[in-house]
Amino acid sequence: MSETTVYLDNAATTRISDSVLDAMLPWIKEGYGNASSIYSLGRRSAIALSKARAACAEVLGCKTREIFFTSGGTESDNTAVFSAARAGREQGKLHIITSAIEHHAILEPLKRLEREGFRVTRLPVYDDGIVRTADLEAALTPETALVTIMAANNEIGTIQPTAELGAICAEHGVLFHTDAVQAFGSIPLDLRSTDMMSVSGHKLHAPKGVGLLYVKETVPLHPYILGGAQQSGKRAGTENIAGIVGLAQAMSDAAEGMEAKNAKLLPLRERLISELSALPGTRLNGSREHRLASNVNFSFAGHEGETLVLKLDLQGIAVSSGSACASGSLDPSHVLTALGLSHDEARSSVRITMSKYTEPGDIDALISALAGIIK
Amino acid sequence: MSETTVYLDNAATTRISDSVLDAMLPWIKEGYGNASSIYSLGRRSAIALSKARAACAEVLGCKTREIFFTSGGTESDNTAVFSAARAGREQGKLHIITSAIEHHAILEPLKRLEREGFRVTRLPVYDDGIVRTADLEAALTPETALVTIMAANNEIGTIQPTAELGAICAEHGVLFHTDAVQAFGSIPLDLRSTDMMSVSGHKLHAPKGVGLLYVKETVPLHPYILGGAQQSGKRAGTENIAGIVGLAQAMSDAAEGMEAKNAKLLPLRERLISELSALPGTRLNGSREHRLASNVNFSFAGHEGETLVLKLDLQGIAVSSGSACASGSLDPSHVLTALGLSHDEARSSVRITMSKYTEPGDIDALISALAGIIK
Repeated sequence: MSETTVYLDNAATTRISDSVLDAMLPWIKEGYGNASSIYSLGRRSAIALSKARAACAEVLGCKTREIFFTSGGTESDNTAVFSAARAGREQGKLHIITSAIEHHAILEPLKRLEREGFRVTRLPVYDDGIVRTADLEAALTPETALVTIMAANNEIGTIQPTAELGAICAEHGVLFHTDAVQAFGSIPLDLRSTDMMSVSGHKLHAPKGVGLLYVKETVPLHPYILGGAQQSGKRAGTENIAGIVGLAQAMSDAAEGMEAKNAKLLPLRERLISELSALPGTRLNGSREHRLASNVNFSFAGHEGETLVLKLDLQGIAVSSGSACASGSLDPSHVLTALGLSHDEARSSVRITMSKYTEPGDIDALISALAGIIK
Repeated sequence: MSETTVYLDNAATTRISDSVLDAMLPWIKEGYGNASSIYSLGRRSAIALSKARAACAEVLGCKTREIFFTSGGTESDNTAVFSAARAGREQGKLHIITSAIEHHAILEPLKRLEREGFRVTRLPVYDDGIVRTADLEAALTPETALVTIMAANNEIGTIQPTAELGAICAEHGVLFHTDAVQAFGSIPLDLRSTDMMSVSGHKLHAPKGVGLLYVKETVPLHPYILGGAQQSGKRAGTENIAGIVGLAQAMSDAAEGMEAKNAKLLPLRERLISELSALPGTRLNGSREHRLASNVNFSFAGHEGETLVLKLDLQGIAVSSGSACASGSLDPSHVLTALGLSHDEARSSVRITMSKYTEPGDIDALISALAGIIK
């Protein structure tokens, strides 16, 4: 197996940063007390949990009681959707609005709800991968229980106008959730009109297996993981202190480093787009303007994305041909087909996603390798 | 805050063992690839995942495709109960049998199902804390969708006759699930008549935030965490490789070390029971014979359990006054009241739980401290 030396698949996962690892290690090694236990070893864990929650709340500009730690972005998304659906059902509201390019952690719960009597509207995203506010306004009905639209897309990095979308929902008294797994730490997020928001640790240089759900205090949360009285009875299960401390450190680091990261990555992204555009048969997928500084997604006509990924892997370069979560599926990406791409065009795509650790030399290596393969 | 030097609350959580930490660290540090990614860094994670699954399957004596990794015992329990309920509902079977002393991770899902039309029978456990097979036989009906009875109790350590209970369920064609969070690694578990079984990492010297659910391959599993196609589409979310590798190591260690651990702890338990019985107003809760070698649970008439815990904490000794998961609740333990204890008797209880790291000196310290406080 070749060694990965240039890692450009940070939308799939990220390496744990040194600051996160340092913050976590004491809670992996000595600080193993159960945060619900009343003796000192347990109280130490409870204090660490409380400090981590305060750090996350400070970063998000919310209250500590609005933060619920989960096992990751998928559980956060599931919790938000099923909680809103439960609240909606109580009020006879059986309609949910989402976009055509959400993550499967949103789409699969919605499919289950459709089988259970809900009606789901999937807003189009046109060829730029952006939801239109007018489409949301037109789709809202008195029966709408929830609008869930991701802040930034995991495949094409397009940024949705969540502040405007949330404001429209607020006007209509409809809950607004956003999956910010890809967006947090990369773009400013305004929670004023956001009722619920999902964040994942491992996309932010924290470990896998931890995430959070922000829930505005005025919004009732119906727990999804049921059992003990942890987290105000809203998310059962012994808290993963090491993971939570790591998440808090990563969120603080990400917020603090966001401007510097974007300042570093934006020129790299623009260079990538220019140079890849110059190759024969290539095409950028999704808006060039409204996209994460870290994301480039190209179709390479006449090539299989997966083959390109494997050829780059032989040169030690890691990129992807779509969402890691959909790997193994033979279906073309629902995100790319929603942009209007044919199945062949969708299958010819490659996603390149950078992190704060990406250096210009990584981009040089990728461009040179890709050019060699394509030509 | 005092320093915990004698840790005797291993039913709440355990410290991570050195072998588990060593197994995990490479996957926390360098091996961060997403196991669904097709390049080498991802394939390495996929191989680690596959090896971990094989190790767990070997320990359990089952097939690799019968193992689903989760975020912990609570999620495993929730998944088992809600999956069986979904299957039951499809067949018009709306009855579930459990015991009066299950963990809240079972009881809370069952309460939700009751609100949704299920009928739940809670079998009594008498004064010894043991379910009777005759009671199960009498409770089974053609509408029974699931029997879920824990293998060993988290508060009093009593061991249920799961092989017999499972065999009765098999005869009647009813699904049998057991929460083995406290039992795995402490008693032999026979999966022949068990359809589903929950295991938690952090009770086994693995980290918090990881567990597994065994599901017999003939039993349909309706996923609870929905999204990406991970784990055969049965449990979505990027796999927590470090945690899973740690769990596999811990399960292998636990299975290998079970006999030695029990040989070490049984005399310590018996000594504890004898010496604590000699103190005024004390009483062992739950069967002395059918209980984990690691568990002692006593009531101390005229004392508040929580006060005893805090006084012991001042001497650096960590024990508990019940389940950590129920901490903060003013209600007396549902487990102890199910044994017939009054609320006062239940509130006067102290749980002492040992691990492979417990030494005779720890027990000396506890007995001496407790005797000093009680007298």
